[in-house]
Amino acid sequence: MSKPNMLDFARLQQMVTSPPLHRWLGVSLTALDEAMVEITLPWREELVAHTEIRYTHGGIIATLIDLTGDYVIAAKLGRGVPTIDLRTDYHATALPGALVARGRLVKLGRTLATADVQVFSQSGQLLASGRGVYFTAEKDG
Amino acid sequence: MSKPNMLDFARLQQMVTSPPLHRWLGVSLTALDEAMVEITLPWREELVAHTEIRYTHGGIIATLIDLTGDYVIAAKLGRGVPTIDLRTDYHATALPGALVARGRLVKLGRTLATADVQVFSQSGQLLASGRGVYFTAEKDG
Amino acid sequence: MSKPNMLDFARLQQMVTSPPLHRWLGVSLTALDEAMVEITLPWREELVAHTEIRYTHGGIIATLIDLTGDYVIAAKLGRGVPTIDLRTDYHATALPGALVARGRLVKLGRTLATADVQVFSQSGQLLASGRGVYFTAEKDG
Amino acid sequence: MSKPNMLDFARLQQMVTSPPLHRWLGVSLTALDEAMVEITLPWREELVAHTEIRYTHGGIIATLIDLTGDYVIAAKLGRGVPTIDLRTDYHATALPGALVARGRLVKLGRTLATADVQVFSQSGQLLASGRGVYFTAEKDG
Repeated sequence: MSKPNMLDFARLQQMVTSPPLHRWLGVSLTALDEAMVEITLPWREELVAHTEIRYTHGGIIATLIDLTGDYVIAAKLGRGVPTIDLRTDYHATALPGALVARGRLVKLGRTLATADVQVFSQSGQLLASGRGVYFTAEKDG
Repeated sequence: MSKPNMLDFARLQQMVTSPPLHRWLGVSLTALDEAMVEITLPWREELVAHTEIRYTHGGIIATLIDLTGDYVIAAKLGRGVPTIDLRTDYHATALPGALVARGRLVKLGRTLATADVQVFSQSGQLLASGRGVYFTAEKDG
Repeated sequence: MSKPNMLDFARLQQMVTSPPLHRWLGVSLTALDEAMVEITLPWREELVAHTEIRYTHGGIIATLIDLTGDYVIAAKLGRGVPTIDLRTDYHATALPGALVARGRLVKLGRTLATADVQVFSQSGQLLASGRGVYFTAEKDG
Repeated sequence: MSKPNMLDFARLQQMVTSPPLHRWLGVSLTALDEAMVEITLPWREELVAHTEIRYTHGGIIATLIDLTGDYVIAAKLGRGVPTIDLRTDYHATALPGALVARGRLVKLGRTLATADVQVFSQSGQLLASGRGVYFTAEKDG
């Protein structure tokens, strides 16, 4: 799981912050090494799922898991890859505040890759975890 | 699977359109009967995941599956329920355009409920499908 | 979802009943049409997970979902396909007795296919449901 | 993740080797500490899914993930727990030979618990990995 990255911090940061949804979310790369990609999502009022408890929407957490897993693969391959399937388990309520996602490679194959992602509160509580399966084969033609 | 709904169209619509994230997304209830809940997500530029192909972000599709499954349960119980876990399978690229999600009850139990959701393009192509598991027990105290 | 089958009942039955694990389990094809594959698993004492309640092991139910989904794809393609990932939701305790699994195609693509499977007791109670994702591309060379 | 175990090796071994399916499979506890449960499955001809390639059936691997995750929770709680849902990702073909599963706790809550399991060949190749969600609340009454 310690294959060298093909992208350095600056190039991966550019990929993370380019897509329109990522710009709206304000996600950014906050750590990168051979074993781990860390993406931070700042909090904003529009992420709220419940007007009273004001927790962050589970779909936003799934989004963070999807994109973090994608950049785990992108760091190794040098390009983004489409998601085949995505799973998210919710462990605790995400109260207002930034979210920190840490992704690690499970398996990088020629056709498929799998990445695991954990999502923490700023105080280090595990809020959610999940896994994405990505398609790594080059499209022909 | 044809238990009567506890919420009518107007009351469920109010639940769908209240949360801040749902207002930003612009989702609304577009059909409701005893077997099915349909939620429509209009397209907006900020949903884009890829600046060139401009497809809708997989996390947005997961969000739509999560919230549609939640309202399948809410229609039966009269209240929203927390998501335990969520799975999304991506079947085809979601090009710019509104998305239509249709959710159905798989199992409604006293502790857990399961809902299946399919996401279609406006022309009726199946783009993604998935499942949420929700916690239905009333919190004590 | 009504693509014609490439395998008829007799040929698919032969595939279902050939693998050593399937012979040990005693699974057989009990219905087949363009929309559905039904596989029946007879009960045997070795399937039990819990010596007192004597319910069927969750892993056996996952096995039944995996193989039924596989034959949904095999019926269309004329050949078995490897499983990429498998998910099972357990809805009710499977007490001693035969299990009936019914599988349906969700999506058949050139690289990936998805099938949904429901598992019922002989009296028609929904005990579990799940989904398999399969690799459909022909291996090169 | 380093909560003390409530069961020692001998008592957990007894739980692992009691159920009829586990006796047929021949699974046994081969390592236990506060962070990890290891279960080994010996190979037998009846586990084969494909008469020519002779790989171990994906359902058997799912069974191994389910039961290993269950004993991760049982070691902490002192009792077995029902599986709510189970997911398995297949990373490489499991050729004939014993399988070694290592499970770790992701989250232990009062209602739900999550465990991750990796399945290796005897030579240490990662063959599959997955996750189970278990119901930990005591049944009332």
